[in-house]
Amino acid sequence: MPALDAFPRKVWNRIAGHRLRTGEPLAMAYPDPAGYGPLRERIATYLGLSRGVACLPEQVFVTAGYRATLELVLRSLATPDDVFWFEDPGYLQAQLFLRNAGAKLAPVPVDGHGLMVEEGVRRAPDARFALVTPSHQSPLGVTLSLERRMALLEWAGKAGSWIIEDDYDSEFRYQGRPLPALKSLDRADRVIYCGTFSKVMFPGLRLSYVVVPLGAVQRFHAVCASLNAGCPYLFQAGVADFIAQGHFSRHLKRMRLLYAERRAVFVRALEQVFGNRLQIELQPGGLHIVAGLAAHEDDVLMAERARAAGFGIKSLSSWYLDNEPQRGLLLGFANVADAAMAKRLALKLKKAMEG
Amino acid sequence: MPALDAFPRKVWNRIAGHRLRTGEPLAMAYPDPAGYGPLRERIATYLGLSRGVACLPEQVFVTAGYRATLELVLRSLATPDDVFWFEDPGYLQAQLFLRNAGAKLAPVPVDGHGLMVEEGVRRAPDARFALVTPSHQSPLGVTLSLERRMALLEWAGKAGSWIIEDDYDSEFRYQGRPLPALKSLDRADRVIYCGTFSKVMFPGLRLSYVVVPLGAVQRFHAVCASLNAGCPYLFQAGVADFIAQGHFSRHLKRMRLLYAERRAVFVRALEQVFGNRLQIELQPGGLHIVAGLAAHEDDVLMAERARAAGFGIKSLSSWYLDNEPQRGLLLGFANVADAAMAKRLALKLKKAMEG
Repeated sequence: MPALDAFPRKVWNRIAGHRLRTGEPLAMAYPDPAGYGPLRERIATYLGLSRGVACLPEQVFVTAGYRATLELVLRSLATPDDVFWFEDPGYLQAQLFLRNAGAKLAPVPVDGHGLMVEEGVRRAPDARFALVTPSHQSPLGVTLSLERRMALLEWAGKAGSWIIEDDYDSEFRYQGRPLPALKSLDRADRVIYCGTFSKVMFPGLRLSYVVVPLGAVQRFHAVCASLNAGCPYLFQAGVADFIAQGHFSRHLKRMRLLYAERRAVFVRALEQVFGNRLQIELQPGGLHIVAGLAAHEDDVLMAERARAAGFGIKSLSSWYLDNEPQRGLLLGFANVADAAMAKRLALKLKKAMEG
Repeated sequence: MPALDAFPRKVWNRIAGHRLRTGEPLAMAYPDPAGYGPLRERIATYLGLSRGVACLPEQVFVTAGYRATLELVLRSLATPDDVFWFEDPGYLQAQLFLRNAGAKLAPVPVDGHGLMVEEGVRRAPDARFALVTPSHQSPLGVTLSLERRMALLEWAGKAGSWIIEDDYDSEFRYQGRPLPALKSLDRADRVIYCGTFSKVMFPGLRLSYVVVPLGAVQRFHAVCASLNAGCPYLFQAGVADFIAQGHFSRHLKRMRLLYAERRAVFVRALEQVFGNRLQIELQPGGLHIVAGLAAHEDDVLMAERARAAGFGIKSLSSWYLDNEPQRGLLLGFANVADAAMAKRLALKLKKAMEG
């Protein structure tokens, strides 16, 4: 969850209220299943400037969230029993979604340089898809190295496979400049690029997007028309205005500073309260802290207890598939407003974890 | 498309604007995948009063449209290769959706009393699903007879199969009182009831709903959480207010009168312009006219020409699966504002159809 307290609500309400009052007829009709044209243009421009992704607005499809994106991609390109490389550990919700959809997952381990591409090639050379988080590995936060990026693209080109790049949280990087997206290196057009407004604006919008290869645009059009996946016009138009009027980039800049600060404050409080029990290694970006625990600790039980006490905390070991799981906690810090709150939360968390 | 000109936009804008300004924190967070609680309550009450459907709010799931409903139902209850009874002719979009989803369709013919249930039992006794439009058959507009309703429920009870009732357009009935939904007779809880706000409010909302059997509520919860299918809070809260403040039932009452009038006016103009060429038999309700053509006429070509000229017209024969197709046109009348417009449209249509 992003820092809802820091979102410029008044600006947003003014923009959305204006769109509501002007009452274009478009607002009432069935929305374009591919997305509102001007928003698709804004996204294409933003991705070019900020993520190094060169794409046409026609390649951008607006969806109702990351899982709606996956649904659209699967319906457009996958056949039953297709094998997916899946990061191990990797994004739990995506894992559940793919399994529900009948996909076969080939777990590929992750180390300090991201997905171990060689291992993927060795274990499942013929996979049709690789679902990856190159900017900020989910959940470990590491960045996929340039060498591995090139190896991944080379494999996909040779195998004729698709890389689904989930570029979540790439906007929030606190050390150095953000790395361009994997998609920016994609000469052979094998990468399907996924982004979302859930974290950079707010999740209640239900707006995400996907950039699809030029050769697949028609297929995606047909599928999203058959899924009737259009998102409400009001929010799409509102986001387009929010970007066009410069609020989006201002908000991102402010949030980068704010999140860096909130993370530092929360880490300090956690270290004070937990001492060496939590092993916190800061990653370059993202909205959560990975706090390692000793192998004998039961992170699943701890996370359960923390959730019962109202924390939105996850256990690291649950995100593993085959790889020997590391124990740890995934702690969001976006809504930790100040040092006093950080201290209070850390103490409450410690108490909750001890049951 | 409903009559957008007759929708109380100002009321709606006031309600949505109010919700926007009050800025509940809920509006920004991830929406409840099952739907906004108060809206689910309003829907349950409305269905009890207007459609004879007794259900708890917990059984109501809010979705982003009819196809999102089908997605949720299929993911919750279907397995690959399940056979679906499908009305022949039947709703084209649903047919495409189900085929895309890998469902096997068993076409069941429709006559003046609706779906020929006996034929279904004879042809595909072991089907897992029957997708039906009992109130207003799509596209023929006939009503499923009470005898066939009972036979259908009996078959589903014995076979352990599910009936998906698409109750679209049931609110718009111009002759006699609306028949209660099939679901109102469903003692064995085999009916999954589907409704939508696209026609009774406006399609840009992207809000539909499904009432699921009590025994399936948990499964639906798990699936809609995994699909991350929540709809934006603002519109759900707005619709809940629109119902609670009495605007919804007032609007429905007004629209019933208005649509009856618009239909009569358009039929008159069509008869004047086309004479006997179009065979129009008025059905009890709905938002389109079925205009039959002689067997030698090419309705597909005519509809294509009409669409090229800007009409949203469909060819009846395209909605058939195996059954010997009738030729005809499906003509929406909701936005035909008056006699002059009706005449103009009829003339323009005639010209377009002649190429």
